[in-house]
Amino acid sequence: PSMEATAPSVGAGANGSLAAAARAQVGPPTNPMATALLTDQYQFSMAYAYWKAGKHADHAVFDLYFRKNPFGGEFTVFAGLEECIKFIANFKFTEDEISFLQSVMPMCEDAFFDYLRGIDCSDVEVYSIPEGSVVFPKVPLMRVEGPVAVVQLLETPFVNLINYASLVTTNAARHRHVAGKSKVLMEFGLRRAQGPDGAISASKYCFMGGFDATSNVLAGHLFGIPLRGTHSHAYVSSYMSLDEIPDRTLRNKDGSKICKDFVSLVKEWLCKIQAADSLRNVFGDTNQSELAAFASYALAFPSSFLALVDTYDVMRSGIPNFCAVALALHDLGYKASGIRLDSGDLAYLSIETRKVFHAIEKEFNIPGFGKMVITASNDLNEETIDALNKQGHEVDAFGIGTYLVTCYSQAALGCVFKLVEINSRPRIKLSEDVAKVCLLFTR
Amino acid sequence: PSMEATAPSVGAGANGSLAAAARAQVGPPTNPMATALLTDQYQFSMAYAYWKAGKHADHAVFDLYFRKNPFGGEFTVFAGLEECIKFIANFKFTEDEISFLQSVMPMCEDAFFDYLRGIDCSDVEVYSIPEGSVVFPKVPLMRVEGPVAVVQLLETPFVNLINYASLVTTNAARHRHVAGKSKVLMEFGLRRAQGPDGAISASKYCFMGGFDATSNVLAGHLFGIPLRGTHSHAYVSSYMSLDEIPDRTLRNKDGSKICKDFVSLVKEWLCKIQAADSLRNVFGDTNQSELAAFASYALAFPSSFLALVDTYDVMRSGIPNFCAVALALHDLGYKASGIRLDSGDLAYLSIETRKVFHAIEKEFNIPGFGKMVITASNDLNEETIDALNKQGHEVDAFGIGTYLVTCYSQAALGCVFKLVEINSRPRIKLSEDVAKVCLLFTR
Repeated sequence: PSMEATAPSVGAGANGSLAAAARAQVGPPTNPMATALLTDQYQFSMAYAYWKAGKHADHAVFDLYFRKNPFGGEFTVFAGLEECIKFIANFKFTEDEISFLQSVMPMCEDAFFDYLRGIDCSDVEVYSIPEGSVVFPKVPLMRVEGPVAVVQLLETPFVNLINYASLVTTNAARHRHVAGKSKVLMEFGLRRAQGPDGAISASKYCFMGGFDATSNVLAGHLFGIPLRGTHSHAYVSSYMSLDEIPDRTLRNKDGSKICKDFVSLVKEWLCKIQAADSLRNVFGDTNQSELAAFASYALAFPSSFLALVDTYDVMRSGIPNFCAVALALHDLGYKASGIRLDSGDLAYLSIETRKVFHAIEKEFNIPGFGKMVITASNDLNEETIDALNKQGHEVDAFGIGTYLVTCYSQAALGCVFKLVEINSRPRIKLSEDVAKVCLLFTR
Repeated sequence: PSMEATAPSVGAGANGSLAAAARAQVGPPTNPMATALLTDQYQFSMAYAYWKAGKHADHAVFDLYFRKNPFGGEFTVFAGLEECIKFIANFKFTEDEISFLQSVMPMCEDAFFDYLRGIDCSDVEVYSIPEGSVVFPKVPLMRVEGPVAVVQLLETPFVNLINYASLVTTNAARHRHVAGKSKVLMEFGLRRAQGPDGAISASKYCFMGGFDATSNVLAGHLFGIPLRGTHSHAYVSSYMSLDEIPDRTLRNKDGSKICKDFVSLVKEWLCKIQAADSLRNVFGDTNQSELAAFASYALAFPSSFLALVDTYDVMRSGIPNFCAVALALHDLGYKASGIRLDSGDLAYLSIETRKVFHAIEKEFNIPGFGKMVITASNDLNEETIDALNKQGHEVDAFGIGTYLVTCYSQAALGCVFKLVEINSRPRIKLSEDVAKVCLLFTR
């Protein structure tokens, strides 16, 4: 795709009220820490040297691009543009920031800090490929033009805001590609991400890269991404027995009547499952604390019951306990959502689980029970999903965390920001590394 | 080290004014996005299920630990505790957050949201190993006790705040170990980190792990970490010729007199270097735009002149140009700081550069010139520094970015948060993965 000018109101000449209008229109950066100080010290050293030499207002053109597709792949998805636009629309030094800069650069003349006080990005123009585009190495993704001292200050935050955004969007797109269009993909990476913002950015950009939902509530709030999440092993472990459920009543779905003892109904179903010819020899005794946790969870969420079935033993306890609760819910007009597997051989367990669901559907004549959603979520990544596909599996939804959000197989994209022109004269940097040398000019 | 109670004023019983005092004493989280919504959706689902079953106030004990040292190493440095304490001291839902939760959990009773409105962490106790301790797998780093529903809400943010913090602190400590105590280590990772917060956290925790400075100005402002940074290749490329330096005057260091044409002085020194017997055959013509950039930078920072010497050709242009400027500064009583190499064979170039510095010291009788600081900064990591050590090198300071801050060789630490006790009864989770099973009890 060709580049187009973005945020034209920002690049419309030095004009305080116009800059204020841009701020109001674009809104603040998602991360309040993305302020004008979020840059490298050398950008300020250079700004001072430019200013001392009277070069600070020289018109410079910088290109942002990367040299190699990540993950050994053949494409990259460009992301992070919106945050860059928010960054420049809000770019302004506060007095507190100016004081800090004075304290760390005591050798600089006072007039330089007056200059910093006055700058914003109203003289900066940004041309960019649209966010979400598939892009390739060495092609400029963004061109940033303006006074050299100001554009240099933008180098570090722009590269920061584009690098990880593009990397994790690409990673998400690759996971979508390997999982296929029909699977539900959920980003579960908050706890393993590189800090709060790593997590929030991951949620935003995984959604952009083709994921369906996130576990991150704040990301749901900030970006409107659908949220998913039911319960953890700790929830299951926290129950000891069915005696811990004080209120066992459950109104049926259409509200017409009340089941006074949902727990007894669950126990009846468990007995029926254990006695069923088609299921005989599959199920023995199940873990009663797990059954209590499932029953209690179903009482709280009868319309969206989804159980984590691997706390004790998937096939001997988790699945029969889940089925008993799901069948009891069915008696009251509710449809259970499904199960989640978080350990073990996901291909085998999902296939065995599906067999049980189909057997239950047939045995008790419950249409649709066989199609219960099976979610898997144990340290998944592109390779493990590909391996599951090759083995054959019955997983409908994947919850993916660590490998997705930290971009474990390649944790950084090497975006660079290179001066290509100053005062209309092309510039080139020759490097001792031959691979880094390339001709740069305004394309 | 044994665990000790932290932030006793937080864990001092339900008391609104005490909680407010804790907030005031501890301060807000570094990242304003570390709010009570920064958790997994399932923590809220579980909170509701606990609340529905009347179990939400059950006294639960959770341990936070990891299973394996990162980077194939034998130790981990525990970090992130301060941010966890700030998190709980400020833990409180706003009305906006409650409204959002109601919108995504419409099936939950209104009284549950009243319960959420009322909770803070005044009933939560945190016991922890001191931040910065060397720790090992499977040993609890933190114990968090309190009402099960509240402590569950803390699981995700705590693990998020500890995981990356401990990982990057450990990575920094490993880099310090391989570089040795005498080297200056600078964290240059802002542009390649996983988002703004990944960068700011990296700066904070690399300093904790033994680094000396950062390039990240905001981290300098937030944490008081020393800042380093001079200029980039773009700065060098932005100059065309010596004619671009309008003001060539430089007052000498003691202020006693003014050099009217610093540029001419630099040119004189360059001729002397080129003519010197001991340096003959080393230097030919140098790049004049680079010389202009160096001279201009020296005019701005005469007391801390440090030049990036690899824009054109290190030995044929960068080093003689640097030496000419450094010698001119010396005439005026200033001592140049040194050079930075950002490409090429760092071992070879640093050794050759050192030879030139020593030759200059001898040729022109400038005591100390041979000890000029040589900084290196091209995609460095533990392995490349180790390789440099084995080859022999003359680098005094390392600027390390990508591999350090993204923890490239292992981008996540697998910290977990496990229920070990509820209402004084020990709990255990058995997993289908044998490696995940371990006996948990209050140690």
